[in-house]
Amino acid sequence: LKSKKKTATKLGEHRIIEIIQQHLTLPDMPVPFGDDVSAINIDEKTVAVLKTDMLVGKTDVPKQMSLYQAARKAIVMNVSDFASKGVQPSAALVALGLPRKFTQKDVKEIACGLDDGAREYRTYVIGGDTNEASDFIVSVALFGTANKSTLMLRNRAKAGDILAVTGLFGKPSAGMRLLSDKNFQMEGSSRETLLNSVFLPKARLAEGLALGRCGLVSASIDSSDGLAWSLHEIARLSKVGFLLDSIPVADEVSEFAKVNKVDASDLSLYGGEEYEIIATVKPEGWNAARRAVEAVGGQLLQIGKATGKSGVFLDVGGQSHVVEARGWEHFRSQI
Amino acid sequence: LKSKKKTATKLGEHRIIEIIQQHLTLPDMPVPFGDDVSAINIDEKTVAVLKTDMLVGKTDVPKQMSLYQAARKAIVMNVSDFASKGVQPSAALVALGLPRKFTQKDVKEIACGLDDGAREYRTYVIGGDTNEASDFIVSVALFGTANKSTLMLRNRAKAGDILAVTGLFGKPSAGMRLLSDKNFQMEGSSRETLLNSVFLPKARLAEGLALGRCGLVSASIDSSDGLAWSLHEIARLSKVGFLLDSIPVADEVSEFAKVNKVDASDLSLYGGEEYEIIATVKPEGWNAARRAVEAVGGQLLQIGKATGKSGVFLDVGGQSHVVEARGWEHFRSQI
Repeated sequence: LKSKKKTATKLGEHRIIEIIQQHLTLPDMPVPFGDDVSAINIDEKTVAVLKTDMLVGKTDVPKQMSLYQAARKAIVMNVSDFASKGVQPSAALVALGLPRKFTQKDVKEIACGLDDGAREYRTYVIGGDTNEASDFIVSVALFGTANKSTLMLRNRAKAGDILAVTGLFGKPSAGMRLLSDKNFQMEGSSRETLLNSVFLPKARLAEGLALGRCGLVSASIDSSDGLAWSLHEIARLSKVGFLLDSIPVADEVSEFAKVNKVDASDLSLYGGEEYEIIATVKPEGWNAARRAVEAVGGQLLQIGKATGKSGVFLDVGGQSHVVEARGWEHFRSQI
Repeated sequence: LKSKKKTATKLGEHRIIEIIQQHLTLPDMPVPFGDDVSAINIDEKTVAVLKTDMLVGKTDVPKQMSLYQAARKAIVMNVSDFASKGVQPSAALVALGLPRKFTQKDVKEIACGLDDGAREYRTYVIGGDTNEASDFIVSVALFGTANKSTLMLRNRAKAGDILAVTGLFGKPSAGMRLLSDKNFQMEGSSRETLLNSVFLPKARLAEGLALGRCGLVSASIDSSDGLAWSLHEIARLSKVGFLLDSIPVADEVSEFAKVNKVDASDLSLYGGEEYEIIATVKPEGWNAARRAVEAVGGQLLQIGKATGKSGVFLDVGGQSHVVEARGWEHFRSQI
């Protein structure tokens, strides 16, 4: 009888979030529940933007990753959500769960990782909470303010919009394979690049702020649940579809795929822990949006278009292939 | 050699926070690091007020407490910090760590506890994050705005100020003893009161808002680390001392102490998980402050005075007894 109960493992993260949402009283909110960030009105035109994302040692931190890197990453993954909405974070709070065996040196490393992560994106850790826990836990809460009318949401893409990304995909997936299975191989600087995408991820904050300022983006999402999953999210919430004319595969991922006889497209579409911004841009604004991102040292790569047909497809020589709605999911996925 | 390393257990929560603070870059902040809440300037007169406090199943939740109660408490303990600063919370985010074995019913209970906790204090849970973890973790981040000049901080008590509390102490300590050791006894409605102080704690938000509005409070702190510890915190940060003329012991705690042959003063001074506000009030404003709190259905009880002599003392018939600087500390204390 007991096995009939639906446990978290069976429900999966997305269903759990749905159940929680059903039991919450939600106020009138400037950003819909479930977007990359939450927000609440401060005055007529300003909103407070809030985000919390928790890093759990057991599931989110490969054993080769240092505490410094894990703490820094906990900040970066929250900044990435702000980046995708075009919002500069003003301050972070951090609630820590620390196992009893952690040493003074461990604590110092964690603090330095938090501070470096925050300073890299011109924000600060201004407070927090420390607790004893079985797992190593870094729960970050990020705060900023924004003009309500310039927030880039997930649900406003229109058929005909240009689909673009701020960089190439697949490196964290390939990097995780190198870390978790010795049968995978890669040498030299490509190996370094793949591993660093796991150990020292970057948030596209400068790019996101530039996109927010230019006002030409119709919808935007951070890609931490993977490219395919994130595209399906924008599609579902905006009631559009996508036709990709290419998959933005990083060179090192193509190399990794060739050496290890795996599919580079799979690594790029269905991995998680990617921190690129995926955005839809009004066609008439494409050149201006691209130049705005390039002006801050970034890149904006067209990979397809929003369409009126629901679903996400990849065009390969005139043939349309389905891009599935899957990616990383807590409780279900395994590193 | 390994045993020479200072582990979290040996360092204790307070030293760990010190180490973290030493490695953080802190901006100019309207509220000093380590006060009940953190804050950052929004404009000339308004500050964003932020708080994060994490509840960890293993250390913070007695086994007789339901998931509903634990989730509700996670909200309440954050609201209590806002209450002590006189700030109405506008919104909460919640990052959850859930063990794989948790069921759909468990998730629903947690969501209802979060929502009820928030609605009780006229705030909302507007977003969050769900993760797999070994422990049950509820990490709450609370947000609100406040007028910078009316925030009640810990560091502004002056010698001569009246020391007051919003209620009586010791119930959670007595309640925890009833829950953790069958040798402790108590029957009837007193038992209910003691247990409910653990299961369904209340934050003194109405009282805190009234105190903030009246502008007569020089310093204030929430008492979740215990009465004695909290008094020492205000004393240290304000560079004053305290002379108590009584210990605010709840009737049920006196009864519990008598039946179980333990010290009621100890239970009231050195326990934790208390959510009363401790405030110092300018003497000329005492009656107005007391009336302001009574007008919202609360009480403000004078228990002593701030003095120029450092340390916290209790006056018993003209004899001065030392009140020690101890209370609940993560990593060191045990339930």
